[in-house]
Amino acid sequence: MTTRSDGRALDELRDVTITRGWLDHAEGSVLVSFGRTRVLVAASVTEGVPRWRKGSGLGWVTAEYAMLPRATHDRSQRESVKGKLGGRTHEISRLVGRSLRAVVDHQALGENTIMVDCDVLQADGGTRTAAITGAYVAMADAVSWLRERNLLDGEPLTDSVSAVSVGLVGGTPMLDLCYTEDSSADTDMNIVMSGDGRFIEVQGTAEQEPFDRSLLNDLLDLGEVGCSRLTEMQKQVLAEPKQ
Amino acid sequence: MTTRSDGRALDELRDVTITRGWLDHAEGSVLVSFGRTRVLVAASVTEGVPRWRKGSGLGWVTAEYAMLPRATHDRSQRESVKGKLGGRTHEISRLVGRSLRAVVDHQALGENTIMVDCDVLQADGGTRTAAITGAYVAMADAVSWLRERNLLDGEPLTDSVSAVSVGLVGGTPMLDLCYTEDSSADTDMNIVMSGDGRFIEVQGTAEQEPFDRSLLNDLLDLGEVGCSRLTEMQKQVLAEPKQ
Amino acid sequence: MTTRSDGRALDELRDVTITRGWLDHAEGSVLVSFGRTRVLVAASVTEGVPRWRKGSGLGWVTAEYAMLPRATHDRSQRESVKGKLGGRTHEISRLVGRSLRAVVDHQALGENTIMVDCDVLQADGGTRTAAITGAYVAMADAVSWLRERNLLDGEPLTDSVSAVSVGLVGGTPMLDLCYTEDSSADTDMNIVMSGDGRFIEVQGTAEQEPFDRSLLNDLLDLGEVGCSRLTEMQKQVLAEPKQ
Amino acid sequence: MTTRSDGRALDELRDVTITRGWLDHAEGSVLVSFGRTRVLVAASVTEGVPRWRKGSGLGWVTAEYAMLPRATHDRSQRESVKGKLGGRTHEISRLVGRSLRAVVDHQALGENTIMVDCDVLQADGGTRTAAITGAYVAMADAVSWLRERNLLDGEPLTDSVSAVSVGLVGGTPMLDLCYTEDSSADTDMNIVMSGDGRFIEVQGTAEQEPFDRSLLNDLLDLGEVGCSRLTEMQKQVLAEPKQ
Amino acid sequence: MTTRSDGRALDELRDVTITRGWLDHAEGSVLVSFGRTRVLVAASVTEGVPRWRKGSGLGWVTAEYAMLPRATHDRSQRESVKGKLGGRTHEISRLVGRSLRAVVDHQALGENTIMVDCDVLQADGGTRTAAITGAYVAMADAVSWLRERNLLDGEPLTDSVSAVSVGLVGGTPMLDLCYTEDSSADTDMNIVMSGDGRFIEVQGTAEQEPFDRSLLNDLLDLGEVGCSRLTEMQKQVLAEPKQ
Amino acid sequence: MTTRSDGRALDELRDVTITRGWLDHAEGSVLVSFGRTRVLVAASVTEGVPRWRKGSGLGWVTAEYAMLPRATHDRSQRESVKGKLGGRTHEISRLVGRSLRAVVDHQALGENTIMVDCDVLQADGGTRTAAITGAYVAMADAVSWLRERNLLDGEPLTDSVSAVSVGLVGGTPMLDLCYTEDSSADTDMNIVMSGDGRFIEVQGTAEQEPFDRSLLNDLLDLGEVGCSRLTEMQKQVLAEPKQ
Repeated sequence: MTTRSDGRALDELRDVTITRGWLDHAEGSVLVSFGRTRVLVAASVTEGVPRWRKGSGLGWVTAEYAMLPRATHDRSQRESVKGKLGGRTHEISRLVGRSLRAVVDHQALGENTIMVDCDVLQADGGTRTAAITGAYVAMADAVSWLRERNLLDGEPLTDSVSAVSVGLVGGTPMLDLCYTEDSSADTDMNIVMSGDGRFIEVQGTAEQEPFDRSLLNDLLDLGEVGCSRLTEMQKQVLAEPKQ
Repeated sequence: MTTRSDGRALDELRDVTITRGWLDHAEGSVLVSFGRTRVLVAASVTEGVPRWRKGSGLGWVTAEYAMLPRATHDRSQRESVKGKLGGRTHEISRLVGRSLRAVVDHQALGENTIMVDCDVLQADGGTRTAAITGAYVAMADAVSWLRERNLLDGEPLTDSVSAVSVGLVGGTPMLDLCYTEDSSADTDMNIVMSGDGRFIEVQGTAEQEPFDRSLLNDLLDLGEVGCSRLTEMQKQVLAEPKQ
Repeated sequence: MTTRSDGRALDELRDVTITRGWLDHAEGSVLVSFGRTRVLVAASVTEGVPRWRKGSGLGWVTAEYAMLPRATHDRSQRESVKGKLGGRTHEISRLVGRSLRAVVDHQALGENTIMVDCDVLQADGGTRTAAITGAYVAMADAVSWLRERNLLDGEPLTDSVSAVSVGLVGGTPMLDLCYTEDSSADTDMNIVMSGDGRFIEVQGTAEQEPFDRSLLNDLLDLGEVGCSRLTEMQKQVLAEPKQ
Repeated sequence: MTTRSDGRALDELRDVTITRGWLDHAEGSVLVSFGRTRVLVAASVTEGVPRWRKGSGLGWVTAEYAMLPRATHDRSQRESVKGKLGGRTHEISRLVGRSLRAVVDHQALGENTIMVDCDVLQADGGTRTAAITGAYVAMADAVSWLRERNLLDGEPLTDSVSAVSVGLVGGTPMLDLCYTEDSSADTDMNIVMSGDGRFIEVQGTAEQEPFDRSLLNDLLDLGEVGCSRLTEMQKQVLAEPKQ
Repeated sequence: MTTRSDGRALDELRDVTITRGWLDHAEGSVLVSFGRTRVLVAASVTEGVPRWRKGSGLGWVTAEYAMLPRATHDRSQRESVKGKLGGRTHEISRLVGRSLRAVVDHQALGENTIMVDCDVLQADGGTRTAAITGAYVAMADAVSWLRERNLLDGEPLTDSVSAVSVGLVGGTPMLDLCYTEDSSADTDMNIVMSGDGRFIEVQGTAEQEPFDRSLLNDLLDLGEVGCSRLTEMQKQVLAEPKQ
Repeated sequence: MTTRSDGRALDELRDVTITRGWLDHAEGSVLVSFGRTRVLVAASVTEGVPRWRKGSGLGWVTAEYAMLPRATHDRSQRESVKGKLGGRTHEISRLVGRSLRAVVDHQALGENTIMVDCDVLQADGGTRTAAITGAYVAMADAVSWLRERNLLDGEPLTDSVSAVSVGLVGGTPMLDLCYTEDSSADTDMNIVMSGDGRFIEVQGTAEQEPFDRSLLNDLLDLGEVGCSRLTEMQKQVLAEPKQ
């Protein structure tokens, strides 16, 4: 039987915690951890929408993802000091934004903008999936903030969204890879799903060998298991009163 | 029966042409068109590898993707004038590079670098998949150039690589979307496959509604069909002598 | 008798081709080649003018010049990746814009803007002169596009404009230098002329030795010959119906 | 008697907490809070020093300060997205670095570099003084890390360093201003002191009215009180074993 | 008795000259020299204020500081070529702006902006203090220019402002350090004062050893002496008619 | 008879002054004025050459041109603040560098670099020609500095270089245009000549109407007159001992 470096079963998530209201100023905020990966998510509400959307009656949700320089084992240079965003940062920011928008009814949101900042305080694999999973909760709190102020035209959230990574490590499909697993994976896949169990994003990459259809199916199965558990946790945490 | 705007069958590619040797200076070059989408690909060989790879005995393949300002219906601003690369440019450049590297034996390449430039001269949907499909052919010619000069340590190409887009348009899965189809698609997926029919990248995005497992399977089926035909064309075009 | 590397006479242009309508989206477009130098020119029309010109009743014509990374013998780094435009790019963009504006009646153009993009696909000397010569034709087609839509207040083109390089190579004045000639020239001059044989720009540079007045006159004579032939070709190509 | 908005005495610090070892990867790390101001400090050790210091036998300590976008009441734009550092960021980074170096014996540090990252997670006034106070503790842990590996040439820390803000609010000198106090202060002063009670930096600014010598003395008195208490807390927290 | 490298007494300023009207176009301009330090100051008036201040009825004064590349012993790279401002430039620009605003009644200035450019032509220590001292005079001339055109709502200058550096060199407090003194100083302090002898900014930095309260007092005493003399010179030079 | 706005004859230069040694640190420096145009030129010597020229035994001369923000009638934004160089700045920097190199024997210069900074303190037309004319003198002093230290392999200056503008204003050719004349000129030409009366650069631009060969000849005649006088002045000023 295959054992993982941290003793988890192949289809087992790491310890996941989602702490709401971690920040005092943000309309919604969450400190989310997937094992040692820790992401601080702040959802900021502003009235109005970007210029290109004005007068449409539609709201807007967008996201920015970044990493603190010492989130990683070796310190990386600040992108603000370099003066430009790296490709990875761009790519993940766009992924988080798209994932959130997939469960938003922009009509019901009205001309309001929710900007979701995901800042990785510590990275141990799966930062983008932790960010998406936490971002949904922070967005939900930001939506509540809007609702309490009667600023909505209906229910803007059509479903929840969660995300998890799966991968092929040493020939074995595994759920929710930590950094050590991720860096030795042959195939790496990020799966973003809605609360009702459908796919929002599927991004699979062969790091070494191309993968066949049967392996792809195994990985999708694992992803469905993981997202379904995360959906459950999101429901529980949102059922509690915000501190 | 569903008909497409340009009369194609649902599982039909657009007219694909791959013209080798379009440039005089580049070690490999291709003008590739998928219908009205036209991409100029140049594969440039340089001896040596980036600093972080020196002394490893391994080669390096990387790619940059860009669009001419008037490739699109409306002119877009040059990224060189803006002073920074957009997220989309970064994302596609990284995708093209990863896709090519998946069929490269870096040991056999030796400490040589192949830089593949994909410049979209005209865009009508599917620019990234046309770029990958053409880039493989340009890379193959660059590898021949190295082989003729006895600069290789073996056969660096372990397989071919091709790519195609598939999507759900008006509820119907379709192959190789043109711009009109792409901009109204509910779900959009890019599939990159090796010549032996395995997956290198699978990137599916729900633009409107999340999609279920069954639709995902339909789209993967279509992608397999498309990539298999493109693989065939690549073989034919590479079987001809380079002009 | 002096022979040139490619067998041309001293006052002979390279093969010049101007293909109109190379792009589907642009209001005017041309693929122009001077020998192996190939420039793709797109003239884009937008209603309205830059802010500083609003309400003046005057139109605006401007240009941007750029080179694909593998246009040259050795690949050069993308300016979009470097994050800034080089001095040479700036200088040529400004030259092309000024040259076109010299034959434009901005009153007759009305408050419309024509942006002319000149992208060098392959460089073998004389890219800026090929760009200007092709840009005039693309601009003429863009003007026709405006005329067909009754968007003009008269005839905006007061004349045609063409350009050619001349230089002193190995002590001998020559017309339309290719890269090999250009890189060994003592003196290099770019001449931009109107269709009626007057000067729009004269830019002569002593690369090695300063040059005297008599040589300057010889070079101007050659330039007049070259521009006059290019003017003729522009007329012919514009006389044909646009494809 | 003057009361402060949060009920503190005029010479009273806010609740200060210093949590060591908040990050798993960094050689030294601290989550420091001055009331609702929370700064995450990571001290990263690298062998070697910047190029201009190589071969000197001397170490180097430097710092970078930044704020998460939603640290503040209203979200501020990321400096990485803007593509440049603001003046305030530069200024505080330099201040933190200078303050730390004032208590470092670079000879004893040997050719090692300690880079101290101070990232403000939440801002409520006094972020730079909290950063300096926490940074000393993180640096001390990084020094211990070096000592445990026998990488030092002696004791690099000649003393401790702490910092506090003082200001004139509504005509009254106060210690450790929160945001509300700070934004209405007439005079604002940041004081950085060594553990033995001497000054490392004194930066006083008249926000409204110039201030006279007598008021300057009152503010310096308050600053001495505050830094002396912070020095005490630093000692206590460093006396505990690192978790 | 301590002698200084240039024979000055410890509390003696260098030769200070302030030449008004050095530029033809600027509304106020000054060439100010403190010994060999020479700063060209231009105060530019524009009607209106930055967007964030519009409609407030208040004016705005701001400053930019820069150094010519060969102002220093060794040439430094241009910040325009580097593409970003250094931290020191930012810091001094902000200091000059704050110092000037401390003596401005923005109500009386009305919705006008005075932008003060301080360009160091030659640097020999004390460039920021020379800049502030000269900037006040240039600003006063710009205010006169506004008064002559009846564009003011009262007297915008509530006082004058001057600045001087003091420092501890070889254990001895000295006034107005030249470059040689500055670069060997243990403690370096810049003092900005209003004409009536109060403090606007006090910025003291321990370059080597922390400094105690008694030394701080000595340095403040010296600063008061220096600023008082500079105030006197400013009065004299402004009493003369502008050339 | 045509009179000019400032009473000059058509072929008359403005008052030209060239003050050597204006800066204390630079190896060569000049404050040059052409009427109200004032340019500060600093020639900086460094041992060694740029990387691409190392080991060639050849020296290098290059130049940078810039304008202070308030050199002009209306303040312009700093290029360092904008974060990029404008096209005009690039273009003139390149022109100045090329012009100087045309009279330099790089072999005789040995592996030394002369960097010439031309900073326009005040602009009233002809800033680039004043810069070139002054830059030659500053470069000559920098060469003397090298000669005095026995760092040369011969005489690096093969001739002198000067520059002047000519133009067609109101139908009349004129020498050395001031700003008012320049901004209303139909044709504007900058002429750079060697001391022996040959051309180094000829840059003529039709601002309104194209110009014919005969007018071009008239302008070249005027340019020869102007450069010849400037050459004389350069000789005189260099004959005097450097202050």
